[in-house]
Amino acid sequence: MSVRPKLISSAQNPEVKKIAGLKKRRERRKSGLTVVEAGAELRPALAAGARLRTLYYAPDLVDDADREEFLSHAEERSLPVVEVGPEAFAKMAYRESPDGWLATADLPDGDLADIAPGPEPLVLLAEGVEKPGNLGAILRTADGMGADAVIAVDSVVDWGNPNVVRASKGMVFSVPLASAALEETLAWLAERDVRILAATPEGAVDYTAADYSGGVAIAVGAEHSGLTGELAGAASQRIVIPMLGNADSLNVSTSLAIIAYHALWKRQSARA
Amino acid sequence: MSVRPKLISSAQNPEVKKIAGLKKRRERRKSGLTVVEAGAELRPALAAGARLRTLYYAPDLVDDADREEFLSHAEERSLPVVEVGPEAFAKMAYRESPDGWLATADLPDGDLADIAPGPEPLVLLAEGVEKPGNLGAILRTADGMGADAVIAVDSVVDWGNPNVVRASKGMVFSVPLASAALEETLAWLAERDVRILAATPEGAVDYTAADYSGGVAIAVGAEHSGLTGELAGAASQRIVIPMLGNADSLNVSTSLAIIAYHALWKRQSARA
Repeated sequence: MSVRPKLISSAQNPEVKKIAGLKKRRERRKSGLTVVEAGAELRPALAAGARLRTLYYAPDLVDDADREEFLSHAEERSLPVVEVGPEAFAKMAYRESPDGWLATADLPDGDLADIAPGPEPLVLLAEGVEKPGNLGAILRTADGMGADAVIAVDSVVDWGNPNVVRASKGMVFSVPLASAALEETLAWLAERDVRILAATPEGAVDYTAADYSGGVAIAVGAEHSGLTGELAGAASQRIVIPMLGNADSLNVSTSLAIIAYHALWKRQSARA
Repeated sequence: MSVRPKLISSAQNPEVKKIAGLKKRRERRKSGLTVVEAGAELRPALAAGARLRTLYYAPDLVDDADREEFLSHAEERSLPVVEVGPEAFAKMAYRESPDGWLATADLPDGDLADIAPGPEPLVLLAEGVEKPGNLGAILRTADGMGADAVIAVDSVVDWGNPNVVRASKGMVFSVPLASAALEETLAWLAERDVRILAATPEGAVDYTAADYSGGVAIAVGAEHSGLTGELAGAASQRIVIPMLGNADSLNVSTSLAIIAYHALWKRQSARA
């Protein structure tokens, strides 16, 4: 028996204001929630196991196929559904042209202590990365190559940032991740015998010649300033991607993808 | 002897309207010009050898260090300089918070016929890629790994799109590139004995096991639909990047970067 959903029509409704407030990191931290917006993001988030709390939709905006898919999904999982008027939905939404779908989800932020990597893990470190789009892209890479963990070190962006959620294509909900200070990160790695390979344009070792055996963490730094001296100094090797053209570096998430997939291949080849 | 620069104060000035019009592909094609905006983009564009036509700046917006750098650069190269009032500049600018710098540059669009690759070239093909940011990122990869050419096949985006210029960090002005229809591209490759390796989630060969020897073109397709059957069908191998997690593919520019750098390394190892 299907239950008639709750209705919100006023943009002044307190629930609308609460959802709109989740654009701010402070409100996300307070509530433990983030927002997944648009059908194209809900789908991978669901596939990745996101724990949704409430599904909001604007009947005037959604298309029929999406309605059938998401409402039956909500019914199967006893997920509360709220119908929202177009004006109220526009206020909740992050995007300028919303498609009428939005859900709250448990914040993906994780504690380092909760991550339980296997033996000889392959970890990705993103130190001070500033663009949510880059952090999201790093999560897609981590999902693809099966990283044991992704750690945002001294991050100015939280994993629940809606632009990280979007750019990660839902992978923020499935990849083992944490945010931690550098000191805490170094201690966590040392306890598990994980060596650091620091990617930097000043690296001495070509990334294809690096030693990827055993427990390894591949570290990349902020878009403009790169890795801090402290993290680079803690590395067992400083590695570099050859740059044959005019530029002196690639995008941070692209660099990490090239190195991480090379590491995966080298480790698999060594086992074979 | 420095010449007093031309002044534009009215947002109705025809030159302002002309620059604003370059946001449209039609106007770019008609004039043969595109726009490089903001100091952070002008710098790499200049380093990459962009042929600038006119430098516009808003004295009320720019900072002193940039002014010294770009004006002395303009004087050295006899580049016309136009001072623009803040209102007029806002109309010309693409960004919402312009930093007061903008230049017109020769459109980077190239003919296939103008590309003269060396023997056994390594070429990148982007078929139907829709996001300018992805095309720009592909150009950064091409610059980094020294691709002989990048060809946008049946592209809906032109190389002069200001978002391509921005995302490429100026590399659009130095990487050998062309836009071409599929048929023309296949003929061009065949004439030069260049085999196609088609990257697709349905690929049969792991990308690390592919044959990158000789003349090779690595092809990626549109964000959602991937490669057309026609292009995939013309490939000597269909290759795939292993996906160990939840998602079934990576971002298109990330995929190409992983494969292209692996190809570079394999070719260099074979020569060593």
